[in-house]
Amino acid sequence: MIDFQTHPDRYRHWQISYSDRVAYLTMSVDLNAGLSEGYELKLNSYDLGVDIELYDAVQRLRFERPEIGAVVIQSSLDRVFCAGANIKMLGQSSHAHKVNFCKFTNETRNAIEDASENSSQRYISAINGTAAGGGYELALSTDHIILVDDGNASVSLPEVPLLAVLPGTGGLTRLVDKRKVRRDLADVFCTIEEGIKGQRALEWRLVDELVPTSQFQQAVSERANEFAQMSDRPAEAPGITLTSLQREISADEVDYSTLRVVLDRTKRLAELTIIGPDAESPKSIEEMISLGDQFWPLRLGRELDDALLHLRLNETEIGTLVVKSEGTSERIQAFEKLLLENSDHWLVREIILYWKRTLKRLDVTSKTTFTLVEPGSCFSGFLAELIFAADRAYMLEGEFEDRPGEYATLRLSDFNFGPLPMANGITRLQTRFLGEPEAVDRAEDLIGQDLSAGEALAAGLITYAPDDIDWDDEIRLLLEERSSFSADSLTGLEANLRFAGPETMETKIFGRLSAWQNWIFQRPNAVSEEGALQLYGSGIRPKYNPERV
Amino acid sequence: MIDFQTHPDRYRHWQISYSDRVAYLTMSVDLNAGLSEGYELKLNSYDLGVDIELYDAVQRLRFERPEIGAVVIQSSLDRVFCAGANIKMLGQSSHAHKVNFCKFTNETRNAIEDASENSSQRYISAINGTAAGGGYELALSTDHIILVDDGNASVSLPEVPLLAVLPGTGGLTRLVDKRKVRRDLADVFCTIEEGIKGQRALEWRLVDELVPTSQFQQAVSERANEFAQMSDRPAEAPGITLTSLQREISADEVDYSTLRVVLDRTKRLAELTIIGPDAESPKSIEEMISLGDQFWPLRLGRELDDALLHLRLNETEIGTLVVKSEGTSERIQAFEKLLLENSDHWLVREIILYWKRTLKRLDVTSKTTFTLVEPGSCFSGFLAELIFAADRAYMLEGEFEDRPGEYATLRLSDFNFGPLPMANGITRLQTRFLGEPEAVDRAEDLIGQDLSAGEALAAGLITYAPDDIDWDDEIRLLLEERSSFSADSLTGLEANLRFAGPETMETKIFGRLSAWQNWIFQRPNAVSEEGALQLYGSGIRPKYNPERV
Repeated sequence: MIDFQTHPDRYRHWQISYSDRVAYLTMSVDLNAGLSEGYELKLNSYDLGVDIELYDAVQRLRFERPEIGAVVIQSSLDRVFCAGANIKMLGQSSHAHKVNFCKFTNETRNAIEDASENSSQRYISAINGTAAGGGYELALSTDHIILVDDGNASVSLPEVPLLAVLPGTGGLTRLVDKRKVRRDLADVFCTIEEGIKGQRALEWRLVDELVPTSQFQQAVSERANEFAQMSDRPAEAPGITLTSLQREISADEVDYSTLRVVLDRTKRLAELTIIGPDAESPKSIEEMISLGDQFWPLRLGRELDDALLHLRLNETEIGTLVVKSEGTSERIQAFEKLLLENSDHWLVREIILYWKRTLKRLDVTSKTTFTLVEPGSCFSGFLAELIFAADRAYMLEGEFEDRPGEYATLRLSDFNFGPLPMANGITRLQTRFLGEPEAVDRAEDLIGQDLSAGEALAAGLITYAPDDIDWDDEIRLLLEERSSFSADSLTGLEANLRFAGPETMETKIFGRLSAWQNWIFQRPNAVSEEGALQLYGSGIRPKYNPERV
Repeated sequence: MIDFQTHPDRYRHWQISYSDRVAYLTMSVDLNAGLSEGYELKLNSYDLGVDIELYDAVQRLRFERPEIGAVVIQSSLDRVFCAGANIKMLGQSSHAHKVNFCKFTNETRNAIEDASENSSQRYISAINGTAAGGGYELALSTDHIILVDDGNASVSLPEVPLLAVLPGTGGLTRLVDKRKVRRDLADVFCTIEEGIKGQRALEWRLVDELVPTSQFQQAVSERANEFAQMSDRPAEAPGITLTSLQREISADEVDYSTLRVVLDRTKRLAELTIIGPDAESPKSIEEMISLGDQFWPLRLGRELDDALLHLRLNETEIGTLVVKSEGTSERIQAFEKLLLENSDHWLVREIILYWKRTLKRLDVTSKTTFTLVEPGSCFSGFLAELIFAADRAYMLEGEFEDRPGEYATLRLSDFNFGPLPMANGITRLQTRFLGEPEAVDRAEDLIGQDLSAGEALAAGLITYAPDDIDWDDEIRLLLEERSSFSADSLTGLEANLRFAGPETMETKIFGRLSAWQNWIFQRPNAVSEEGALQLYGSGIRPKYNPERV
């Protein structure tokens, strides 16, 4: 089992140090500490384990270190920044692992950009040597790239000439869309194995700053301090500690404190039940801070995040997520009110941004999501996003025979109208109602009301509202039908239907680049016994099928 | 060899009739006239041959029938509109053929939308029965869909439940982005084999109009006449005839009247040399009309279009296109001047829109394009777009030793600043200079000048400007290197680098949907001996690998 939980005390690959308002995240990959056997993580090359630590560090910097306004990513090696994803690891990995690995590394790069853009914690890359493939892609996700001008240090994306695959972590999109490198220069750059260094790297917009060796450290810390000075994060506030998750994993179940995940392997589905808060919302921001990471929305966000990663990587044969909740909208709404009223507080901002990222993770998870709204559920506001993120939502009309007097309700809040945008830059409701934008306004008028199934259906917020007589059969048939379809075509279908409307760098990376990459990861030129990924390092040149499709 | 040239006299699958300003394009597929052996084109199912005729008809309607303001697509069959791409044909086709087939059908659907949007020739679908898969996708590309309400007629996208693939002709994107169908309803729709009919099809925005059987023909012709009335196309102008292309095909060469294509199979490249006009531009629009399809820019457009299709489908192992030209910019510019000064004339508009489509076809061709600007070439204005459409462009600095006094030049015109946008909605120069938009303005100031290699390089219009000493070696090494790379990774690289900037429905279809589809067309769930495409119709249910990636 791949565990996404870690702690700086256990890091094998990264060191963190602090200097005033700047954090230094130093990549120092332990070559013998790969997640699997069979490869050595030479030259700061990485596998999923290295990236799990990076993800952990990025999260902690936001919650535990409010004073940090800039983060420098650097290397502990001499003349090597990072060699990218480990090729031997890729060569021996299954298709599913490769794809999921790339998806997670992409999400972590996006989280870095989210920190720079929305959390006033700007990232800088200090490239002291070769930054190849995923190494340069990591740098591309930072706000500012400083390259040492020592005649050796270079940036490169050698995937096409060396490996017959594509840069897997948004490199191509970030080249032409983020850094706006001219397309013909990008074409040249992506076919030069050894990469580009010095003045040309600067002129081609591949890096932001070029500094002689003697001034390198000085320039990096100056720039970092400058960025940190501009941060709106509080210099004096204490952070909160992200403690270990409360989690019990058994054969077919994962029990968290706010979330229960039950697998049905025969039906290939996971039921995710959100368990509403067991106590009232704190009344003030101070009370909230004193709860630290036990504040319910944060606790649930972390647990849901972990559950999604677990299901993706460790349970690839689970095809459908059935999302439910237990609790009361009243109680949820009190938490929401506290968050919304203090949205400019640094910690509240972090919690909301974390929810944004977790919901986005759900959006790009290659599993069908069905949300069921039943009596006793608490889909209010930010939890209602789980209805709009779903491929379909079903809500009980009327009562269950055995639970008379209880009705399913759905409640909207301001959370559904702005703070939690999708990767396409607009809200889930805006995306849902592209064809009738006035429906978004009408929904806004319903904020705070307990909507019945009939009302929710009329407002277009759910897909179907079966009654007690039909409910069980309809859900059962739905789940049976879904698991009878081809997993691949469902993945493609969902990826295409979920992201209508505007496109952003992020949707391009997930929707376009990762699709091309999935395709290439299937092609014999890359992955057969005689493909480039297998033969890399053997001295034997792969023989390619020249057919162009 | 697949021939893209045809003529209504030879059509096997379509009939065209005219009534006042409306054309009726009737699908009547000859089941025994498939392009290959091994399948029958039942129920108006189609293969590439059917679509080649459709493409031909769409082109001719624009050039030969200026009076036509609306086109109705209908079926000759009883209670069947179109069953989509023939499954047996897909099952027996190579991966490359499937992908190229889908790309061409997509381009033809886009050409239909281009006619509606830019040529004032609006398309209507008259769905008299079942419109399944590609059948409904054809309808989705039209401006207005009328469905008969007879309790039988339906629209459907049954690819996922029946075939384990995705709708291959933009169906998913057009559902949620063009018709803005709600994503959960789209999910339901795409999993119902038998599709959706009647009122629900209308409510879900799947069709625009629902008409009882008795009023169907009447409603269709009323709507068509209404659309035709709104057209700005001239009711009285005579059209021009698209005559057979002058083309000689030999083993390694295709000779057109304005274009020479020479293959080097060892190096896997095709050299495309544009041969400049052999006569001066006509002086007036009347003179131009009298030349009909022999007017040089139109002749070249048609020949280049045919050459690209030929190279894609018949020469899949050719990986690189080397584009050259012979002629003088002066002469080209005179043609451009005539076009630009008469851009509101219906025929000029058609010629420019045709060039737009042909250049877009080059943009999405899965082959590397290198443009070489040498002494004696004529890359002016619309031909200069072949420089900006290329993955790289090389221009000779100085003279060739054996041709003293001749210099390579490049000339910009208004054609480079608006009339020929890419699929992303902006010009190639705007896409090129996303990172320095002021470079577009600076380029505009250079309109009409003969730019030297040095000037073109300084303006960022070309990639490299080697001199006589380096030229041959540099080009030779470039071509050798390119053909040493994996064809698949080059396809992915180019698809990602070519389309920076905004996204449109078209870029989504080519960049995202077709990538997902390529991937799925490789997956055993769809294409193995036990995959859905192979087993379709056998009564045996495919057994799927449930792994989600």
